[in-house]
Amino acid sequence: MKRYNIYVTAKQGIFNPAGATAKNALDNLGFAGVEDVKVGKYLQLSVADNVSSADVAEMCEKLLANPVIEDYRIEDDDAA
Amino acid sequence: MKRYNIYVTAKQGIFNPAGATAKNALDNLGFAGVEDVKVGKYLQLSVADNVSSADVAEMCEKLLANPVIEDYRIEDDDAA
Repeated sequence: MKRYNIYVTAKQGIFNPAGATAKNALDNLGFAGVEDVKVGKYLQLSVADNVSSADVAEMCEKLLANPVIEDYRIEDDDAA
Repeated sequence: MKRYNIYVTAKQGIFNPAGATAKNALDNLGFAGVEDVKVGKYLQLSVADNVSSADVAEMCEKLLANPVIEDYRIEDDDAA
């Protein structure tokens, strides 16, 4: 079994409503010095040994990320 | 300005509905060999230089994560 980590983030210039909401809430709770918050997704995939990172990239393109507005980064998790 | 990355994941044994849905969808799309998918959050915080990782941990406890059902890991992003 192999494990891949995937980090999905909004592309540069795309508004991130979850992040803006979190920033406002932190301000309202009294946390000072927070300039920007971006909220993305962190996916952990456990796959069979014959699944390559190219396969995982295809999963991202077709389902796990929205390539129109999101970037993704795939990381081979050797620790698993 | 400093940057922190935060990884929020469901605690061990807590059902992850988004991950189960993604796994089913990958199966239905014909991707073989996917054994498990877990969906968590990946947050990028830009903060003033005087904001410590302890401050960020407090933000996680109070707002950014749900400590009852989620774990979080804070990473000091030196690259920023």
